[in-house]
Amino acid sequence: MTHRFLVGRDLALSTDQARQIATVLRLRPGDQVTLLADGEELDYRLDQVSAAAVAGTVVARRPAGAEPRVRLVLALPLLRGEHSELVLESATQLGVARFVPYTSSRSVARELGTEKRKRWERIAREAVETSRRARLPEIAPVMGWPQLFEELEGDTLVAWEEEHTLRLGDAVPRGSDAVSLVIGPEGGLTPDEVDLARRNGAQVVSLGRRPLRAETAAIAAVAELIAALDR
Amino acid sequence: MTHRFLVGRDLALSTDQARQIATVLRLRPGDQVTLLADGEELDYRLDQVSAAAVAGTVVARRPAGAEPRVRLVLALPLLRGEHSELVLESATQLGVARFVPYTSSRSVARELGTEKRKRWERIAREAVETSRRARLPEIAPVMGWPQLFEELEGDTLVAWEEEHTLRLGDAVPRGSDAVSLVIGPEGGLTPDEVDLARRNGAQVVSLGRRPLRAETAAIAAVAELIAALDR
Repeated sequence: MTHRFLVGRDLALSTDQARQIATVLRLRPGDQVTLLADGEELDYRLDQVSAAAVAGTVVARRPAGAEPRVRLVLALPLLRGEHSELVLESATQLGVARFVPYTSSRSVARELGTEKRKRWERIAREAVETSRRARLPEIAPVMGWPQLFEELEGDTLVAWEEEHTLRLGDAVPRGSDAVSLVIGPEGGLTPDEVDLARRNGAQVVSLGRRPLRAETAAIAAVAELIAALDR
Repeated sequence: MTHRFLVGRDLALSTDQARQIATVLRLRPGDQVTLLADGEELDYRLDQVSAAAVAGTVVARRPAGAEPRVRLVLALPLLRGEHSELVLESATQLGVARFVPYTSSRSVARELGTEKRKRWERIAREAVETSRRARLPEIAPVMGWPQLFEELEGDTLVAWEEEHTLRLGDAVPRGSDAVSLVIGPEGGLTPDEVDLARRNGAQVVSLGRRPLRAETAAIAAVAELIAALDR
């Protein structure tokens, strides 16, 4: 397996990527890497390698083929510590197309600073490379609860611990181009917040009989939903 | 929501739990906690509270109701850093009944020392309390690859990146009391190892078109499997 790098449409490797190729991986002219670019996967032969810049030639290209067939948007609560990052990493590998970070009344974490956002972007990029997705998920600005529903796309599902009847697996929207999934923060969503979601057309679903921590809930729900949607 | 504590059949709270009740949570006689004991959930009124010992009275008991209907065994590769712990935490919340840690030829991490095993047990206990399961999952000794198949129970599924046809969701065993799931280590399983699994009767399945890191694969596969089995 060759090393994979996510690049833009111009196929240019960044200085960080050049440094990694030259200094960390110690690749040489003639070695091959894989570029992931805008839905394509390209075999790329290195012609010039230095820590400042790398140049090469595309020797084969094919559709990346690993993007899910349905656009999944994840409304991700800001979580304490590194829990949001953990979800971001796994959910990007699983195929989420867009993250909408948000806070609600019981949120503990409330801010996504510039440094942390940069870190999120780096984590998402690495997860795309791991999972051969060839397209970076978008990370929207942080929203509040009512505002969130203007940002979501397609059919919206809200996972709620107090819902005991309708299971996620029985509520998977069929035939939609886009599906949005909302997971609550550590302290949960309030009944008023869930009412507002319902008035915005969201379906409220259960993730099963066991209460889950927010990050487990997010990864588990994305996994179940993607498995059902991307067939 | 009251605080939940996993205890044995004798309902005795450990000194660690007593200290948490007295010193961290600062509960007083008359306050109530929830005990999770051997499949039951009990409302427990505190009568005496000190950092050394707590005594109380059961005021109500009911079946815990959160154990999955099927016994799921997870063969969990020893992973680098804290990745195994992460899987252990999420997979316990999701409902895994037994963990069988193992190493195979491409494993990077190879040992589960006494301290680390204690840490695993603490993580599993906390995850049981989070998810109201009332039964601690077993953590088996570390196995090698061939030996592993003597330890697994029921129908066995092996998730493999090189399997592209049969999806996990299409291979869920029906009518089994127990199902075992094997996830590969960071470096993946070798074709020889997968052959040996097949000769031991295992079904080899795909987790979808995107390569996943081992810990994402484990949590996603457990989530999908439990959602299908525990209905």
